[in-house]
Amino acid sequence: MSTTGGAAPRTLHLNAFLLNVGHHEAAWRLPESDPHAHLDLAHYQHLARTAERGLFDSVFFADSPALLGDVARRPAGTLDPTILLTALAAVTTRIGLIATATTTYNSPYELARRFASLDHVSGGRAGWNVVTTATLEAARNFGLDELPAHAERYARAAEFLDAARRLWDSWEPGAVLADKAAGVFADPARVHPAAFEGRHVRVAGALNLPRSPQGHPLLVQAGSSGDGKDLAARYADAVFTAQQTLPEAVAFAADVRARAAAAGRDPRSVLLLPGVVPVLGGTEAQAREREAELDALIVPEHARRQLAQTLRVPVEELALDRPLPPDLPGEDEIEGAKSRYTLIVELARREDLTVRELIGRLGGGRGHRTLAGTPEQVADALQSWFEAGAADGFNVMAPVLPSGLEEFVEHVVPLLQRRGLFRTEYTGTTLREHYGLPVPPHPSERRAGTRDAVPEAVRAGRVREAVAAG
Amino acid sequence: MSTTGGAAPRTLHLNAFLLNVGHHEAAWRLPESDPHAHLDLAHYQHLARTAERGLFDSVFFADSPALLGDVARRPAGTLDPTILLTALAAVTTRIGLIATATTTYNSPYELARRFASLDHVSGGRAGWNVVTTATLEAARNFGLDELPAHAERYARAAEFLDAARRLWDSWEPGAVLADKAAGVFADPARVHPAAFEGRHVRVAGALNLPRSPQGHPLLVQAGSSGDGKDLAARYADAVFTAQQTLPEAVAFAADVRARAAAAGRDPRSVLLLPGVVPVLGGTEAQAREREAELDALIVPEHARRQLAQTLRVPVEELALDRPLPPDLPGEDEIEGAKSRYTLIVELARREDLTVRELIGRLGGGRGHRTLAGTPEQVADALQSWFEAGAADGFNVMAPVLPSGLEEFVEHVVPLLQRRGLFRTEYTGTTLREHYGLPVPPHPSERRAGTRDAVPEAVRAGRVREAVAAG
Repeated sequence: MSTTGGAAPRTLHLNAFLLNVGHHEAAWRLPESDPHAHLDLAHYQHLARTAERGLFDSVFFADSPALLGDVARRPAGTLDPTILLTALAAVTTRIGLIATATTTYNSPYELARRFASLDHVSGGRAGWNVVTTATLEAARNFGLDELPAHAERYARAAEFLDAARRLWDSWEPGAVLADKAAGVFADPARVHPAAFEGRHVRVAGALNLPRSPQGHPLLVQAGSSGDGKDLAARYADAVFTAQQTLPEAVAFAADVRARAAAAGRDPRSVLLLPGVVPVLGGTEAQAREREAELDALIVPEHARRQLAQTLRVPVEELALDRPLPPDLPGEDEIEGAKSRYTLIVELARREDLTVRELIGRLGGGRGHRTLAGTPEQVADALQSWFEAGAADGFNVMAPVLPSGLEEFVEHVVPLLQRRGLFRTEYTGTTLREHYGLPVPPHPSERRAGTRDAVPEAVRAGRVREAVAAG
Repeated sequence: MSTTGGAAPRTLHLNAFLLNVGHHEAAWRLPESDPHAHLDLAHYQHLARTAERGLFDSVFFADSPALLGDVARRPAGTLDPTILLTALAAVTTRIGLIATATTTYNSPYELARRFASLDHVSGGRAGWNVVTTATLEAARNFGLDELPAHAERYARAAEFLDAARRLWDSWEPGAVLADKAAGVFADPARVHPAAFEGRHVRVAGALNLPRSPQGHPLLVQAGSSGDGKDLAARYADAVFTAQQTLPEAVAFAADVRARAAAAGRDPRSVLLLPGVVPVLGGTEAQAREREAELDALIVPEHARRQLAQTLRVPVEELALDRPLPPDLPGEDEIEGAKSRYTLIVELARREDLTVRELIGRLGGGRGHRTLAGTPEQVADALQSWFEAGAADGFNVMAPVLPSGLEEFVEHVVPLLQRRGLFRTEYTGTTLREHYGLPVPPHPSERRAGTRDAVPEAVRAGRVREAVAAG
């Protein structure tokens, strides 16, 4: 088995992907579910504490700056994830905190600062899932009439991340002198303007915040189009992805790692984390029963309208008990979420699903891999993908929350630990430490060590002279 | 004495305006100060708890999306205040949480949601100090080459607030049905797109967040130019202001109230809250000594450069021991912070200050009124302005933190309470309740009550039919 850091055996990573009362679209209709939990901080605090008790690497929230889909269908409306995760930082001490935010409708200065602030207040636990946001609804919430083209969105995302990194590196480590006697707080020569001039993004000044504990908040990427994989290869520490089959997942991982190597990075420094939807039962039959119970609560008309929207076809062309129509547009014609579109179409074609069956599969976890079975069976499935090189860990999408996460922590995590596949305690305090990834060195640390040859007292003296001469 | 709410006597409001280790620019050089406190969550948690122990209405943070001034001079770099206040919400239960954010470089959809999220997670304690951000440095951090003109910034601010209010009102109270049996989460007919089309701001869709506990987060305005006062008159629940003399403050309050009345509002519904810098001592002489000790720690060259920048004059024209030059530009020629410019020039002219003396006055609290004296003297000064109609309360700017806030809570608050001028316990849980201001009614509640005549069951039935027909 390959190893990441020498002597220690390679172990897998687990993120708790949280969504109100669960990823299954009908979870809110169960008797156990509080349909108002999506705005209830206590609900999320319980989830974060549960995930931390299970030694998860992080909790993670998806996001989009638009009200999407039908509010009749399922709990709609979500707290800003950077605000929610800050509130969760206060009741946890170790677990990572990953929020989704778009590069298409934010500004690098504001967003880089917000994530650096979360990294500061959480003691180095912030992560940013970088998305480009593929809906017309979002574009129209930000004064645009049309969704910017896919390639334009990804070009902006790359510039946005370049600018964000320069902002996070504005302050050299050690720029703060705090010299009370001399009256010199920081060394102006060690605080650098971002001075970033791109085609989509321009940022002049230094960030108004010294470097955060992780140097750069951890970067996650979740799009699986060619543009998305290239962005991940250049910038991402982790990739959240959706694959249904082992060969697909192995090929995807190999593809991303090859692109990372081509971009000059260590291909093992990008962690591949597919989503899984565990539906647990004492027996496999009980798990299947639970799955069927949930699927029976789906209102097919809601889901059919959503599917028609995603596939860009009139809703009346989707007959519930027939396969998808044969003449769907190709991925090239889609300016929205390309990889999600392809995933859905391929799933339906490969398994020859009717629209109703497809809706059931998507309703459970939006196309992520469902693992219905006993804790042993679920642990086996995770282990086989991990050992086959298809995954460095998993984004765990409990269909029902909190119970699905509680069951996973109580029954699956101990099995993974017993097999030596998962940590038995946190060994670090930051998200980068949980993932086994280093703090990115500051550019000043990558240069030749001449600066270090200058004693601090001399440097401070120089600063004072500069001040007096100013 | 006038009253706000019938039987209860009118009492004053206190906000704790927090800034790292204090508002005095040299506070960080005191032996007692931790120069790294500006990034230390525990420091701010202690301040917020202290202010809550003192029954303050709120804690408040200024902000600008730029690194301004000289990093050598004083602690530089600040956490994003919406993130910081969320972290403080977690360790407090009553005190209001007011963050500054700019309408010039944010988008209404994102920022309205962020403040609504803070309002949700804090149980109705969020406030937003609306600013238009007057520096070229900020403009250049957001891709602009020039500072947008003053009038343009205020025109955008008004549209931004109109759009934000429409977003906060997207969801009618009661839009969430949570009807598990019928499988209907919310009533689409009671969720409304913002549909705001302005000259500077366009927002199409509904906010992806139901209405927050305060309906609208409390709105604060802090600019004192004509445009600023007009914005306050139309939108603000409270005005943070800076006046040095009682006649100025009375005139300012009367002016804002007259503008509010002209805008069709109850003039008493806008609270006027001037900043005060309390320098406390056991005797007046001790307080003066403390003030002198702090002023002696100012490095005049830092301050002279900053002053030259604010006044738009070459630094060599400011001789430390002479008055300001006579030929300064008029306020009309300034596109930046007009009212702050005028305040500084008028202070220097009125009191015939040398540049060095002016620097001392500004160093203590950026031109806010300094009250150096015993707790009795400070309480007297607050009472006289309150009773003269110059203030509904005060923005308390401790020169040194935490000690200045601790002393105020221990020694000044009890005096104000004994005089019947300040609450002896929190009677509400939201910031609007502390300020005695109602939740803004939703537009659907302001219309004729026909909607209420429709029984809920009928309404839910209609929704189900609409869903089935969709």
